[in-house]
Amino acid sequence: MKKKNLILVTNDDGITAPGIRKLIEVMNQIGEVVVVAPDSPQSAMGHAITINSTLHCTQIDVENGTHREYSCSGTPADCVKLAVNEILDRKPDLCVSGINHGSNSSINVIYSGTMSAAIEAGIEGIQSIGFSLLDYSWSANFDAIGKYIKKITLIALEKKIPSNVVLNVNFPKLKEEEIKGIKICRQAKAYWVEEFDKRTNPMGLDYYWLTGKFVNEDKGGDTDEWALTNGYISVVPVEFDLTAHHAIQQLNSWNFEK
Amino acid sequence: MKKKNLILVTNDDGITAPGIRKLIEVMNQIGEVVVVAPDSPQSAMGHAITINSTLHCTQIDVENGTHREYSCSGTPADCVKLAVNEILDRKPDLCVSGINHGSNSSINVIYSGTMSAAIEAGIEGIQSIGFSLLDYSWSANFDAIGKYIKKITLIALEKKIPSNVVLNVNFPKLKEEEIKGIKICRQAKAYWVEEFDKRTNPMGLDYYWLTGKFVNEDKGGDTDEWALTNGYISVVPVEFDLTAHHAIQQLNSWNFEK
Repeated sequence: MKKKNLILVTNDDGITAPGIRKLIEVMNQIGEVVVVAPDSPQSAMGHAITINSTLHCTQIDVENGTHREYSCSGTPADCVKLAVNEILDRKPDLCVSGINHGSNSSINVIYSGTMSAAIEAGIEGIQSIGFSLLDYSWSANFDAIGKYIKKITLIALEKKIPSNVVLNVNFPKLKEEEIKGIKICRQAKAYWVEEFDKRTNPMGLDYYWLTGKFVNEDKGGDTDEWALTNGYISVVPVEFDLTAHHAIQQLNSWNFEK
Repeated sequence: MKKKNLILVTNDDGITAPGIRKLIEVMNQIGEVVVVAPDSPQSAMGHAITINSTLHCTQIDVENGTHREYSCSGTPADCVKLAVNEILDRKPDLCVSGINHGSNSSINVIYSGTMSAAIEAGIEGIQSIGFSLLDYSWSANFDAIGKYIKKITLIALEKKIPSNVVLNVNFPKLKEEEIKGIKICRQAKAYWVEEFDKRTNPMGLDYYWLTGKFVNEDKGGDTDEWALTNGYISVVPVEFDLTAHHAIQQLNSWNFEK
């Protein structure tokens, strides 16, 4: 009998978030599931890892099921490292991260804890997918997207994700019947215009809250932003070789010797 | 008279680190300097930003000089956002981050707070360079590399760094006369093999320290690892469009409709 696929599930909203509970439910239909996720929200942690303090990891029992669950004190990237090196007996066949409560499309991939966990798994040579829903609410409804997550995961396991590539999957906030399909996209060129909310604390000291406005000036029909705005699920292949290969020739023309 | 270049200086080792003090000294020879840096070490913070707690920022006076300095409670990426949106009157002509105490070559770019600050500036449309020395010691000697930092910065200001590209500059730990020159490189394909040091605290609870071994299986003579091992300064152009463009065609052949 073929061995079941071993699937590592993690996220950045914390192990009790409704998004990861839905992801666990879907993955339990596909393979043998082990959950290693942060014990508290770790949104916007980027690819942070914990090197100056200690990590704790406890096996917990959130709900009945055949899977095992571990709650960790670290970042999403820490969770993947701990899972692979300390918790799992063998390298997982797949790592899935999410479902994030909120978008990780476009430039958000850089700040995303969800995607940092997926990318960390990719660096370690594990096939990996991050899932996010464009709804920041804790009570977001993940029911519409369960069947798509299953479909994307099964096809990825069958076809194999290209080496050194991780999938960044975002879902529009739509009813199941309103979703038009799945589009392979590139990351839209967009950015955040920050707006700091400056306040004064009771001791008279100024402090700031970071807020911002998302600006997308990339009108390309092949971008994740276009797909999501037009009712599609976006799938962006993401790489962790950050080299701007196209710029090497231009930089080589700089004369450093003068 | 031509206006002096406005240079934003930041880092991830904290505003008092010897590396940033050296970088400020060099930048004071080139333009008008404003320092906005973390009030405490933020190594390995990746591209984390602070969205669930408040930020503080205080003008301080670490040493005499014509430049202004601000110490911030956030991550390196927060410092850049605060600088651009709250502290500076105009968009800086350049952002420099570092000098990091330790390597940010190869895959380290992903975990690096130094590079996340530089990349954040790049996302905001500011020319940007991260500098790192392959010496983790707090008492690292930055004297040998001052003249190279000046040279690279001046040529970048003159020639202009290509759009949407940030430079990741790493220096070997060598005497000035031993450095062979500057090489434009690609990021070596390497990874860390984690080794968790598992211990038990006085209350009987297990905890971990993350340690690891750097593994470079990329023998290419055009990589940053090759350059650094062979006595060169490595300059890698880094981009923040993470799309694996080469993988799009392959993914388009997957049949999601079945």
